[in-house]
Amino acid sequence: MGEFDLIRRHFQRAPSTHNAGAVVLGIGDDCALLQPRPGHQLAISSDMLVVGRHFFADVNPEALGHKALAVNLSDLAAMGARPLGFTLALALPHADDDWLSAFASGMFALADAHACPLVGGDTTRGPLNICITVFGEVLPDRALRRDAARVGDDLYVSGCTGEARLALEHLRGSDWAAAAQGADLRARLERPTPRNALGASLAEAGARAAIDVSDGLLGDLGHILLASGVGAELRVAWLPSAPALQTLPEKQRLECLLAGGDDYELLFTAPTSARAAVKAAAALSRTPVTRIGRTVAGSGVALRDEKGQTVPFEARSFDHFA
Amino acid sequence: MGEFDLIRRHFQRAPSTHNAGAVVLGIGDDCALLQPRPGHQLAISSDMLVVGRHFFADVNPEALGHKALAVNLSDLAAMGARPLGFTLALALPHADDDWLSAFASGMFALADAHACPLVGGDTTRGPLNICITVFGEVLPDRALRRDAARVGDDLYVSGCTGEARLALEHLRGSDWAAAAQGADLRARLERPTPRNALGASLAEAGARAAIDVSDGLLGDLGHILLASGVGAELRVAWLPSAPALQTLPEKQRLECLLAGGDDYELLFTAPTSARAAVKAAAALSRTPVTRIGRTVAGSGVALRDEKGQTVPFEARSFDHFA
Repeated sequence: MGEFDLIRRHFQRAPSTHNAGAVVLGIGDDCALLQPRPGHQLAISSDMLVVGRHFFADVNPEALGHKALAVNLSDLAAMGARPLGFTLALALPHADDDWLSAFASGMFALADAHACPLVGGDTTRGPLNICITVFGEVLPDRALRRDAARVGDDLYVSGCTGEARLALEHLRGSDWAAAAQGADLRARLERPTPRNALGASLAEAGARAAIDVSDGLLGDLGHILLASGVGAELRVAWLPSAPALQTLPEKQRLECLLAGGDDYELLFTAPTSARAAVKAAAALSRTPVTRIGRTVAGSGVALRDEKGQTVPFEARSFDHFA
Repeated sequence: MGEFDLIRRHFQRAPSTHNAGAVVLGIGDDCALLQPRPGHQLAISSDMLVVGRHFFADVNPEALGHKALAVNLSDLAAMGARPLGFTLALALPHADDDWLSAFASGMFALADAHACPLVGGDTTRGPLNICITVFGEVLPDRALRRDAARVGDDLYVSGCTGEARLALEHLRGSDWAAAAQGADLRARLERPTPRNALGASLAEAGARAAIDVSDGLLGDLGHILLASGVGAELRVAWLPSAPALQTLPEKQRLECLLAGGDDYELLFTAPTSARAAVKAAAALSRTPVTRIGRTVAGSGVALRDEKGQTVPFEARSFDHFA
């Protein structure tokens, strides 16, 4: 089977099966054409996933298709942008029909759930590499930028962090993760749920800064603080902690919660005057949201226990080239 | 040096050094934000370049930076769209400062020449892989779509085709390319010139269908014909032929002209009533344009000599998975 057949067979679907919304022209020309709604800005994010770095070589291709799109949708969520479509560039060592079918199935199931059609891309032979670029729309001045936090904002996180890290340690055979088990935990690593409904609602609700937690909560919080020129006090006892983490030694539990990675939850700030609106956005999007601290004058993060005392913890952020 | 330092050092430039035009927010957040001009559609293209498939491992990184962006700009040109910006996703086996510096230099020189700033992307460790996604804007109904050719259109090509193929054969040591030489020829392979000024002018001039010639003139013409439901008569004697090709045996010369690949010239159709406008667009963009035939009822391409007789030639199109 040739390249063009391959693309057509697995990735080119009838126009009727996707939300035509903003898509003027999809796969099959030199460019795709999109028409965002008048007055909206275009939000763009691009992520590259490489075998051995972002996933294991024997990963379920259906889960990989899901995750490759999910991590990009998560970037739109963190901007408060509504998804419009995406491109897929794919390097494959060989054209495996079963693998492609499963990969496409996982990717399109998530794309359909978010009305975010595939509009174009590229396919070539090479070491397995997946590059998705996603497009969304957002009203000017509503985007949840990293530099928008102000001193005295509440600090929130969606869902809970740490399960993906625990699943990863379990797969690696870490002894402290021996107690961890179950398909649910592995699903948290391999099938993250991007928080797009929440992100869009938060942009309406007057939230200020946001980021998606992909490299660990503390590391990603650091990006907001640095960009906004503020510091933060984080109440460790307020952090939502999944049942799977409860039996861990405290050091490992904190490592998962604060520096886990692959969480794809939203970490965001909002003025205290927006507490009711944030609660309503969480309810509207059916996404749990927890207040975990506040921003303060200065820089860096202070971890506090229930009595306001400092909690010792050495923060590390994941770095592909470290 | 860590990932974040790496990105910042080579790819994050001061806002003043690029055309801020449509860019509301560039590198450094979850998403970039673009604001196309009111009433315009967004044109998007994504290409992935892999070592061993699209370039040699010992390629000059400065030339590679140029080419990676050039092939994407060429897709915008073929749509008649004006460049707005691009994202770069890059997998590297290791963080080599000199390599990155040269790559960035080649890429940014072309980006600056087209007022097309880098707005975001991703960097990871992995086998060398370059995925660029480019964004442009075009007025509705002006885009040069592949399905827009009509029976009786003139058929044109910009510049001339075949030199990149000859350079490739020379690098591979083909005996029939032994006579080929010179840095200019190699530059045609490694430093293609995207025809963006011409593409934008043609959209204004009332051209109909267009495609950029990347997989060979005949193969790419086939995409227009199939999408538009027409055939074509191509006058072989009218094809512009570079001096470097003149000494080749006729069979190899035709192979270069008609099925060379990596040309990045524009192949387009326009109604006969637009001949003066096409000529003006070529003059305005300082790009040579040659009329090489016409579209006809039916399907497929008929190659004709000066007397209208059929020229035998077996067309092949490049296929990464064949």
